[in-house]
Amino acid sequence: MTAEKTAINPHAHAQEALLKGLLSLLPASLVLTDPEDLRPFECDGLSVYRRLPLVVVLPETIAQVQAIMSLCHKLQVPVVARGAGTGLSGGALPSSDGVLLSLAKFKKILNVDPHNAQATVQPGVRNLAISEAAAVHGMYYAPDPSSQIACTIGGNVAENSGGVHCLKYGLTVHNILMLKVVTMEGELLTIGAETLDAPGYDLLALMTGSEGMLGIIVEVTVKLLARPERAQVVLAAFDDVVKAGEAVGAIIAAGIIPAGLEMMDKLAIQAAEDFAHAGYPRDAEAILLCELDGTNAEVSEYIMAVRKVLTQSGATEVRTAVDEAERQLFWKGRKSAFPAVGRISPDYYCMDGTIPRRHLPRVLRQISQWSAEYGLPVANVFHAGDGNLHPLILFDANKPGELASTEEFGRRILQLCVEVGGTITGEHGVGMEKIDQMCIQFQSGELSQFHAVKAAFDPAGLLNPGKAVPTLHRCAELGAMHVHHGQLPHPELDRF
Amino acid sequence: MTAEKTAINPHAHAQEALLKGLLSLLPASLVLTDPEDLRPFECDGLSVYRRLPLVVVLPETIAQVQAIMSLCHKLQVPVVARGAGTGLSGGALPSSDGVLLSLAKFKKILNVDPHNAQATVQPGVRNLAISEAAAVHGMYYAPDPSSQIACTIGGNVAENSGGVHCLKYGLTVHNILMLKVVTMEGELLTIGAETLDAPGYDLLALMTGSEGMLGIIVEVTVKLLARPERAQVVLAAFDDVVKAGEAVGAIIAAGIIPAGLEMMDKLAIQAAEDFAHAGYPRDAEAILLCELDGTNAEVSEYIMAVRKVLTQSGATEVRTAVDEAERQLFWKGRKSAFPAVGRISPDYYCMDGTIPRRHLPRVLRQISQWSAEYGLPVANVFHAGDGNLHPLILFDANKPGELASTEEFGRRILQLCVEVGGTITGEHGVGMEKIDQMCIQFQSGELSQFHAVKAAFDPAGLLNPGKAVPTLHRCAELGAMHVHHGQLPHPELDRF
Repeated sequence: MTAEKTAINPHAHAQEALLKGLLSLLPASLVLTDPEDLRPFECDGLSVYRRLPLVVVLPETIAQVQAIMSLCHKLQVPVVARGAGTGLSGGALPSSDGVLLSLAKFKKILNVDPHNAQATVQPGVRNLAISEAAAVHGMYYAPDPSSQIACTIGGNVAENSGGVHCLKYGLTVHNILMLKVVTMEGELLTIGAETLDAPGYDLLALMTGSEGMLGIIVEVTVKLLARPERAQVVLAAFDDVVKAGEAVGAIIAAGIIPAGLEMMDKLAIQAAEDFAHAGYPRDAEAILLCELDGTNAEVSEYIMAVRKVLTQSGATEVRTAVDEAERQLFWKGRKSAFPAVGRISPDYYCMDGTIPRRHLPRVLRQISQWSAEYGLPVANVFHAGDGNLHPLILFDANKPGELASTEEFGRRILQLCVEVGGTITGEHGVGMEKIDQMCIQFQSGELSQFHAVKAAFDPAGLLNPGKAVPTLHRCAELGAMHVHHGQLPHPELDRF
Repeated sequence: MTAEKTAINPHAHAQEALLKGLLSLLPASLVLTDPEDLRPFECDGLSVYRRLPLVVVLPETIAQVQAIMSLCHKLQVPVVARGAGTGLSGGALPSSDGVLLSLAKFKKILNVDPHNAQATVQPGVRNLAISEAAAVHGMYYAPDPSSQIACTIGGNVAENSGGVHCLKYGLTVHNILMLKVVTMEGELLTIGAETLDAPGYDLLALMTGSEGMLGIIVEVTVKLLARPERAQVVLAAFDDVVKAGEAVGAIIAAGIIPAGLEMMDKLAIQAAEDFAHAGYPRDAEAILLCELDGTNAEVSEYIMAVRKVLTQSGATEVRTAVDEAERQLFWKGRKSAFPAVGRISPDYYCMDGTIPRRHLPRVLRQISQWSAEYGLPVANVFHAGDGNLHPLILFDANKPGELASTEEFGRRILQLCVEVGGTITGEHGVGMEKIDQMCIQFQSGELSQFHAVKAAFDPAGLLNPGKAVPTLHRCAELGAMHVHHGQLPHPELDRF
């Protein structure tokens, strides 16, 4: 290599060194560079962001992952890890000058241990497959994102995934014990322990939800729970969305922690009913689905208590599913709400923000007011128990200006979430989609601390660059914009 | 200031600047320097380590804490934070050249919110005081370290405290939502959120259990739970410690998560019985105390299920407390076990290690074997459900060599905990006491990562220096020693 040659095309030369290096570490069949082969990796579940990586690698062993990382570290090449690609915030979007590291070949269940109530699996194992493997012991893995048939546990850890049952059973971080992680430098770390707690700083929690920016997860030990003896669901109808919101707080204040507590408003109810024929009351302004689980006796007791609270909160109708078939039907309606809304509108924009439960009534009222102002219908379908909102804004991208209005409406909802003490994302992560909203959520002190933590793992910023945590510079620019638009401080709050 | 003067006594000069600075920030009554005033701060609950700080400050506001930290950062003076000083690993031991920052004046309960099931308190609020304040709403704060009458929530966060009920309700990290933290540079950060999860890296979990090495906790928002309708305890006697250990795993595998699951062996039973007259079976080799809580119906169902498992596991006697008075008496025996053992031996050494539950039988067998070899009796009193062992080694410090034998025995127990996949501390933290054992627990990769995380918050190492995470150099030296003693790898493991 001469200096002259380097000067002619340093980029091509670096790419050549990378590919040559990767091919020395992996069989050629596990290194993809043909654009046709790269195409399936160009986006995750949020397909508005698309980018082809330079190369896709499909390692099969931890040693291979270590060698790949070590090579990329040496050559200072960005690396983006990818599980099943079901994420909804663009977190797995490849770097065009980097390696897309797929964990698709890591799909072994290594151990299921009922006496210790835990299982050790590779990161490419599907979420549901863990529960299937534990079923023989009467156990299951609790977090159940709606993509659980497809999404993998490694991705769940990266996004700290939740699901319908996280109100009672917690998020991914509350249901894992130990991780094996490969650092950017190619070092293998074991973090956490097979016990309640490990000494030292809590790197297990730090890694969980870090969106692939601190290390590559190559093994996960999860907690298992005993499958509850019985689950039952209560459906309550309300003639007012605000009353339904108030009922949510009243249930929690009564000391009941439902396994799931979901809310749908009229538009969502009707769309879901037309699609799934779940038996929902079509004329209700809102319904709550409240699932109770536990022992037979416990569930019976809680159903009585929940029915009482719902009635006192002004429910116009309270129905307990008569049998398992009806329980499944109630849930089918809820689970098909998103595609059902998709049928009644050319386009919809799914928001994901979280608020303290006590603010549900006022935030729902505000969204409905904005919906009228913008002339954009909103269907609300969400995890009411944890205050995790999913307003679906219905719009038509072909109508001039509607996409822009929709985006503005969405931004205001997220800003309102932050203003009432909530967050800009409940379970979908920040990724590419919400990186600007992070500037609303955090001040420079917290953002600087995030950058310092990132630098403790990956000082060169090679792991999943450009995601999840904005630069202070970006926020400073956006901050100016926000003031210009007069959106901060928020005048609407005075109206409540 | 001349260079000459600085050269004569730089140390005295720096001290003078510090004191002058502190007195400009705080009223003189909140800055203690008289050795008599410093004495109460020389140690925490582990009184084998004693050291006087240079100065004690007792700030009353967050702004004062920020100003103190900013001053100390400027002058590069070490700072050790202190709650109630009930810690058991020397974590609050002052630096002789530094500031001891007491949070004793931060004792306001700022807000209790039953609808959102949370409370916001200052860090100097006692653990039990939170539950007392929430009682009017039928709620409580779940983690209950045995020092809960005295220990404060700030210290609980710093140590990630547990308690008898953490098997079911989790550690401190699982029961807090939000923290306000002052950094070494004096910046105020808000971390976490009033919702299930916050975007960005999980600094909330990272701060929890960080033993005062990352920042000063100045406000805590905790989760509250509804007080269970009923709690009941089942006492089971066994003629063999190993059988009792096996019963613990069998209960969990049956899908029951007791609110508490405690074990005592013969020596502990007899000492506790002589002291507290709890009605324990004096001739049993081990007893289990299994507490169930929940609704009336649920508790009844679980009691039946637990009794069945205990009988099948070979219990010689299974008794349910006949009334609340007997339930309290059963717990009184357990809670007084440590002082009771203190009465039957001149000295005892309380170990704190955690193991995966499935290894309870073999670890208990090994401890008993070592006890015979060393001629040192051991009383076992511990949180069996989470595998958190507390072997109390009985010895007489006045007998030549017994302290050294006891310490060696203790080290071997902790090493065994690590070898079976557990940890060197269950709930007492690392602090000063276990810093060398961290070298057994972790390899250089994990320790380096801990140091990098520490540097992301406090690059100069001014916060609680010398605690919790050993230098690689220290471990390298100890590693050599261990190999020399032939204790690693562990030959005993082959004998199981």
